[in-house]
Amino acid sequence: MPKPISSELVATQLAASFARQGVLMAWQARLASAADGACEIVLPMSAVVTQQHGFFHGGVIGTLADAAGGYAANTLLMPSHECLSAEYKINFVAPGIGDTLIARGKVLKAGKTLVVSSAEVFVVKDGVEKLCAIMQQTLFVIPIN
Amino acid sequence: MPKPISSELVATQLAASFARQGVLMAWQARLASAADGACEIVLPMSAVVTQQHGFFHGGVIGTLADAAGGYAANTLLMPSHECLSAEYKINFVAPGIGDTLIARGKVLKAGKTLVVSSAEVFVVKDGVEKLCAIMQQTLFVIPIN
Amino acid sequence: MPKPISSELVATQLAASFARQGVLMAWQARLASAADGACEIVLPMSAVVTQQHGFFHGGVIGTLADAAGGYAANTLLMPSHECLSAEYKINFVAPGIGDTLIARGKVLKAGKTLVVSSAEVFVVKDGVEKLCAIMQQTLFVIPIN
Amino acid sequence: MPKPISSELVATQLAASFARQGVLMAWQARLASAADGACEIVLPMSAVVTQQHGFFHGGVIGTLADAAGGYAANTLLMPSHECLSAEYKINFVAPGIGDTLIARGKVLKAGKTLVVSSAEVFVVKDGVEKLCAIMQQTLFVIPIN
Repeated sequence: MPKPISSELVATQLAASFARQGVLMAWQARLASAADGACEIVLPMSAVVTQQHGFFHGGVIGTLADAAGGYAANTLLMPSHECLSAEYKINFVAPGIGDTLIARGKVLKAGKTLVVSSAEVFVVKDGVEKLCAIMQQTLFVIPIN
Repeated sequence: MPKPISSELVATQLAASFARQGVLMAWQARLASAADGACEIVLPMSAVVTQQHGFFHGGVIGTLADAAGGYAANTLLMPSHECLSAEYKINFVAPGIGDTLIARGKVLKAGKTLVVSSAEVFVVKDGVEKLCAIMQQTLFVIPIN
Repeated sequence: MPKPISSELVATQLAASFARQGVLMAWQARLASAADGACEIVLPMSAVVTQQHGFFHGGVIGTLADAAGGYAANTLLMPSHECLSAEYKINFVAPGIGDTLIARGKVLKAGKTLVVSSAEVFVVKDGVEKLCAIMQQTLFVIPIN
Repeated sequence: MPKPISSELVATQLAASFARQGVLMAWQARLASAADGACEIVLPMSAVVTQQHGFFHGGVIGTLADAAGGYAANTLLMPSHECLSAEYKINFVAPGIGDTLIARGKVLKAGKTLVVSSAEVFVVKDGVEKLCAIMQQTLFVIPIN
């Protein structure tokens, strides 16, 4: 059975929206998966994402978590709507030491006006994932013109 | 009267720490001022800081706010100590439409182990500043080796 | 010049809404002032607001901050609308040791759908106010039936 | 095999600490379980926990979530240490309409100085649990005298 057209449309919209995010493109972030209220974004270590000790920067970790929660919501909102971050809160639980960051977002509650998402961010070193941050977020739903 | 040596030492430490932040350097962020529990960081618009509509990205705004609160704390902690972000929370109150971002951090409470800072982020368009985000943050104090 | 009718209507609505809050009544909290996007709530120490060391409980401090931010918003929304808390975040910066709590809320940004408020909570001991908590909050606007 | 003495000591300490919380006692909150980094607190509806529409008050929900995260941490810290809330953030995802609140806290990361916990709060109506709030929290570890 073929996938319904709307799923393909959403996948195309998600990819197009992600590709327009200059900051994520400059970091070579990649939308690894996004469907059914969940999303995974992967980011390689490089000189443009570090803090003063050479680890992944907390702001970079926050940006990835924010994006993962937002695109998780977009999977449920598109093709007619998308979301903007109203606010987010992030706790850092381990330093961002490793070669790759993986942010996994999921929708906790999808309302008509607001969506609440969370994300966990893992840092990968020598193939081992370690939890490094936890985010909770409120998103504001807007129509796509 | 000459400035006390410790102030110059702190100013040098602050500048050196800031210059080691790869993500801020890649964005051409600038530490405009940092002293007495306050800090101002300025960021020009460019293709590497945008979201999908071409505005300043929420994660970039969050990163700048996080850095401003942290360096505000560092002005009180250095030369013997510095800080890491334990967590932050940011509300977005206007879209980041403009040519420059200015993040102004200040210390609300400086404890021995934890420092609480806040930051306001303004977006500048045609010379007019507009409040676009408000952040509240907990920092963890660590010794400088 | 007499106060406009709408101001009196709002003042009456605010007082009536506050008086219906069972938890605040049980604590003998008092709406000291509420106008023009700001609000002050006062709470006396008693056996029903303590934590395990006999200080004001963090949850009580959070409740008061939440209410202060919400009623600050209501001063701008009433008589036609009121607000519900979508989320809040609070930092505790000193233990709640004293005889009185004072929560002062103010609106940072009033949108049509969301309002962002902040509040500072002070604990009063021997007549001296000390900052004990700082809150940042998102409120959701709803019509009054 | 008998339970180790330290477990019983911790259980006794947890119960004693909980029973000293004036605000939770006044609400008739009950520590339903607390062990191994997790905790459940139950609260019956009554006139002293309501907001203006007669639902569970957001501040009450926040207090319960805060307590659940804190006692989850205490299960790992006691008998030698306990914790104080440094900060918490809570999102409300459904109105607190029902006869009982259940807050379930768990530790996400236990450090020597800081513990990060989360909690979910459910409202029970006609025997059906519904998620009404989600909390994320930073706790500060202190020795028990």
